[in-house]
Amino acid sequence: MENIKYLKDLKIKNNQKILLLILDGLGGLPGQQGLTELETAHTPHMDALAAAGASGLMDTVGRGITPGSGPGHLGIFGYNPLKFIIGRGALEAAGIGFDLKKSDVAMRFNFCTLDSKGNITDRRAGRISSELNEKLVTKMREVSISGIKVFVQTVKEHRGVTVFRKDGLKGNLLDTDPQKLGVPPLKAQTSDNGESSEMADIANLWLSQIHEILKDESPANGILTRGWCNYPEIPTYQEVFGLNPACIALYPMYRGVAMFAGMKIYTEGITDFATKITVLSKVWNDHDYFFFHYKHTDSAGEDGDFDRKVACIEEVDKALPDILDLKPDVIAITGDHSTPAVYKAHSWHPVPVVMAGKYVRPDDVKKFGETAALSGGLGRFEAYYLINELLAATEKITKYGA
Amino acid sequence: MENIKYLKDLKIKNNQKILLLILDGLGGLPGQQGLTELETAHTPHMDALAAAGASGLMDTVGRGITPGSGPGHLGIFGYNPLKFIIGRGALEAAGIGFDLKKSDVAMRFNFCTLDSKGNITDRRAGRISSELNEKLVTKMREVSISGIKVFVQTVKEHRGVTVFRKDGLKGNLLDTDPQKLGVPPLKAQTSDNGESSEMADIANLWLSQIHEILKDESPANGILTRGWCNYPEIPTYQEVFGLNPACIALYPMYRGVAMFAGMKIYTEGITDFATKITVLSKVWNDHDYFFFHYKHTDSAGEDGDFDRKVACIEEVDKALPDILDLKPDVIAITGDHSTPAVYKAHSWHPVPVVMAGKYVRPDDVKKFGETAALSGGLGRFEAYYLINELLAATEKITKYGA
Repeated sequence: MENIKYLKDLKIKNNQKILLLILDGLGGLPGQQGLTELETAHTPHMDALAAAGASGLMDTVGRGITPGSGPGHLGIFGYNPLKFIIGRGALEAAGIGFDLKKSDVAMRFNFCTLDSKGNITDRRAGRISSELNEKLVTKMREVSISGIKVFVQTVKEHRGVTVFRKDGLKGNLLDTDPQKLGVPPLKAQTSDNGESSEMADIANLWLSQIHEILKDESPANGILTRGWCNYPEIPTYQEVFGLNPACIALYPMYRGVAMFAGMKIYTEGITDFATKITVLSKVWNDHDYFFFHYKHTDSAGEDGDFDRKVACIEEVDKALPDILDLKPDVIAITGDHSTPAVYKAHSWHPVPVVMAGKYVRPDDVKKFGETAALSGGLGRFEAYYLINELLAATEKITKYGA
Repeated sequence: MENIKYLKDLKIKNNQKILLLILDGLGGLPGQQGLTELETAHTPHMDALAAAGASGLMDTVGRGITPGSGPGHLGIFGYNPLKFIIGRGALEAAGIGFDLKKSDVAMRFNFCTLDSKGNITDRRAGRISSELNEKLVTKMREVSISGIKVFVQTVKEHRGVTVFRKDGLKGNLLDTDPQKLGVPPLKAQTSDNGESSEMADIANLWLSQIHEILKDESPANGILTRGWCNYPEIPTYQEVFGLNPACIALYPMYRGVAMFAGMKIYTEGITDFATKITVLSKVWNDHDYFFFHYKHTDSAGEDGDFDRKVACIEEVDKALPDILDLKPDVIAITGDHSTPAVYKAHSWHPVPVVMAGKYVRPDDVKKFGETAALSGGLGRFEAYYLINELLAATEKITKYGA
């Protein structure tokens, strides 16, 4: 469904405030006691919201699909992640906190090992250390191409990002990584019938100089590029929803997706969960939508640490009264995907969501949890409809038709 | 959503095994005691799966739509039946067990009665007996057209199927049945602006000879053709899901749809339910997906025999331990549509589904049944998403995005 299209025509501006609290990887699977992490956690404040409001379960990308963090967040922001794609280069650049501009072209690269004939012998150059990566990146920055700014950045180990900045540059190129050994890296070629030929020419010139400058290095004497793309063309929160949104998140990846959606990113003074709440309070009067991100639930899930994930959820619950003191007109608490501790990875299981506010129709659910949410008033739905519910509950969507 | 599209790019091959057990026409309506056939049946083994796994309700074609067996099975196989169409000629050919080839064109025909001027007086020739049908079909086989193989087959009563076999033949023709009396049968015409003109020419030549050979018969002295089509272009399980699927079904119609989806069809040694299980066990190591079909629930429903439908469900439940002994990594039990005994026909009511496996998130449902399934973890959904759930639960779909 094209919620983005019709919401654009129905939007109403008002002063009501929406708070979206994301516990990364919130959804779980039963542990030893037969309850999930969320069901195990002591969460009186979240339960009170469930009792007062409505619960449900969301598929953030689609049924059975395990979301990466990028698509997972796009979904909870209101964009169908199967339709709105953020290029991998742009996502990686956002992920390291690079301040990507509208006219930029971004790509990811791996350091690789080439033999004396220029054929690839290792597509990851033995997974070199981040320290060596930084040393090589410094060297790569010596290459300059007239008329264009080039930014080379370390990600970690064998991985990096490059951003090309020039007005009107189109970045639809194919990977130069041939995905196999014993052949040389491919030449840069357009994937749009030549429309990005300027970028292809620049890329080939730049790549030949990069290979020249790296040729005596070992084991990383070449690079393979992937995920070439422009700044993602995603309609912003301002355009589509008429919102003036703020992002309070510590990790660059989430800030990146929020930035592409048009959110104002707050970073100053944020070092941990407590300072995030301080910053949220400080900017409360300046916005009408707040994306507040909590990371540690996901990390605990990925570590397979059930008890730590429970403790993380309880940490958020304890702080919830401070957040609710700000008096959001509607609050929703959910995750961008599930990361069950017993699975130790992102998973496809739908995430529980609770929503409370003056005009949210209550249901019979009294606790916040996966099983309880099954009988909740929100039902099971694609996450990109959550924004519809949030906008409706704050009277930001006008009547459709007479 | 286009699950077929995105699943194709996300598929992972592994050795985990999916078992889809279909009780044809499983869904029901309450009988005298206020319970459906499934709710009335004593089904301890299915209930155990419900308690361990997740339940839901599926619309196999769409809300309120009564599925034919073809579309119903397409839906549970993962194809949106409103998008993926199997031509009626091909379905009818598959339904009588005809081994349709990729280059075949198939159509259905009715015997009809024509008056002395060649106008139709009965579109079904008084619903002649199957015996007379077979006699006439034998006669029709005397007609031959040079350069093409023609197969004429009895279906039953006044109905038959014809298959034309020639490399590259396109079969988009309009019906020659004018759907009214007092006019002659129509000439064969293309429905694709002439692309199928070779088939139209062959059809008209063939039809004139058929009418010549039938002209002295009574009451069936002509035929009316419908549902002209090529072998259905449905992306196969191998292409889309990366699966190596097997079909264990006794009735040709279901085998036909399974064949179009790319399943290997097992028939040898199958005479009843017990021998189906024997064959399933025999081929267990050769495949990673098994479509196992049980017919009698539907027949009992169509006969309006509530108690017999209950007994059929109990027969399957009793055999379930033998099937579970094979240790499928995930099992789903459902129907291709509802056939309530009180309705004596296929119906539009959603079918209950239960799914169990190591990574299926459990819900509170303890019994397999329509009403219990309402609060199940799978929710109510279009059946073509069931394959997403099955692939996810067997870790055959990779993460979407970073």
